[in-house]
Amino acid sequence: MDIDTLFNNIRRKKSFLCIGLDTDIKKIPHYLLEAKDPVFEFNKRIIDATLPYAVAYKPNTAFYEVNGEAGWRTLQKTIAWIREKDPSVFIIADAKRGDIGNTSRLYARAFFETLDADALTVAPYMGRDSVLPFLEYEDKWVILLALTSNPGAEDFQFFYSEKEQKHLYQKVLQEASSWAPPGRMMFVTGATRAEKLTDIRKWVPRHFLLVPGVGAQGGSLEEVARYGMNEQCGLLVNSSRGIIYAGHEKDFAMKAAAAARDLQQQMEQQLRQKGII
Amino acid sequence: MDIDTLFNNIRRKKSFLCIGLDTDIKKIPHYLLEAKDPVFEFNKRIIDATLPYAVAYKPNTAFYEVNGEAGWRTLQKTIAWIREKDPSVFIIADAKRGDIGNTSRLYARAFFETLDADALTVAPYMGRDSVLPFLEYEDKWVILLALTSNPGAEDFQFFYSEKEQKHLYQKVLQEASSWAPPGRMMFVTGATRAEKLTDIRKWVPRHFLLVPGVGAQGGSLEEVARYGMNEQCGLLVNSSRGIIYAGHEKDFAMKAAAAARDLQQQMEQQLRQKGII
Repeated sequence: MDIDTLFNNIRRKKSFLCIGLDTDIKKIPHYLLEAKDPVFEFNKRIIDATLPYAVAYKPNTAFYEVNGEAGWRTLQKTIAWIREKDPSVFIIADAKRGDIGNTSRLYARAFFETLDADALTVAPYMGRDSVLPFLEYEDKWVILLALTSNPGAEDFQFFYSEKEQKHLYQKVLQEASSWAPPGRMMFVTGATRAEKLTDIRKWVPRHFLLVPGVGAQGGSLEEVARYGMNEQCGLLVNSSRGIIYAGHEKDFAMKAAAAARDLQQQMEQQLRQKGII
Repeated sequence: MDIDTLFNNIRRKKSFLCIGLDTDIKKIPHYLLEAKDPVFEFNKRIIDATLPYAVAYKPNTAFYEVNGEAGWRTLQKTIAWIREKDPSVFIIADAKRGDIGNTSRLYARAFFETLDADALTVAPYMGRDSVLPFLEYEDKWVILLALTSNPGAEDFQFFYSEKEQKHLYQKVLQEASSWAPPGRMMFVTGATRAEKLTDIRKWVPRHFLLVPGVGAQGGSLEEVARYGMNEQCGLLVNSSRGIIYAGHEKDFAMKAAAAARDLQQQMEQQLRQKGII
């Protein structure tokens, strides 16, 4: 998907919501456990109910790999289901991969060909040649970890060079943004550090930011929009648990839709305030 | 596996060789393509032929995920095959995972329970809480990326803090070595930078180092042993392509065994020189 199509989808749905399909079989309604593939049944219903409000879905591979080969099949079916229901939706495989060049090339094939995701999250530690193979696919995106939403972000991402006058995460943003145009790369920047988005917008004004941590992890949507939005919106805000586990009974999909709709409406308001719609 | 058992295996086999099972279906002998699971057939024969010379095997998950759910099954069968043939072998899932805490916990289940690996390679970028969940399993190991063997290692791993007077990779080694004793954590330190091992040994004297990059990537075994060995050996040196693709015909397994034996004999010499055997 190119960046203009993504932007058009945001305007059409009045939403920059990404829904994290972090589906834990231990947390889904019990009655679904009778299905042949309970996680897929759950995902299907969540997707069908929330599609009007989301421009992107983001299955995290850990939640599928934990079930071995069956989990991988579930992931494949989930992505195919989204594609079938709405080909305009942006699908992110949240896999945080990254390896030496020839190995990253295989991950690229795994996620962009075998699974047909639009984007893959990638860890930056191994540098440029670990990221470039993912950029060889036209219309596919790298979403590089920059500033994550977890407490451990403090450990290394804020490592500071006095000479360069920057933290590691700034170095990552500035270096990596020269590897690909804004239409091929996004950055993960956690909502739990929304005030940092002002600086981040100076360094990468045109790139999209994938922002996790709104809701369960404590980030504020309003602050994220205030500091992070650019003229093409430039934001995908992810919510996982707050949407998919909004309900625990037979009406779980309806509850998820209500939670997604609530976020979409807040997003619509932000898009209007910025004159984007 | 505990550290003393690993050390005993090294003394018994007179080897600190880890064989990387980076099996690309495009590179295996053509006649194997008729098998139901060609990659597994290849792995089985490589394992059977090289077991006398190796203390560890390291399948890289990219080479399996590229084949989707079937690839995951191949990976599972490969690990089970090693376990059955020699329960004393150390099995490393080279997956370079790492995510927020509750997600890393699922990766830990995927690799330590579903797949029964002894160790998992982990990327450090997300910090402490992304690594700790992997340490909750007794007798299982984290192998953290510190200084990798690829060119991109220069991009961020050498990011330097004048105040702390250290590069990022030193920071990672020193911080992370306080998270777990040497019997639970190793570090990836590439052989292409063997001269750095002198410093690394000052910072983490007792931890094992997993050293890729000998052979195909240009690192020297002798230098790695000279600068990196400690009194418990403290090294697992990985070779992938140089062993598994040593031959391309029906005798490929014999050729792989010869290549592995060659490395084992060089290792035996190093172990003798250091008085370890």
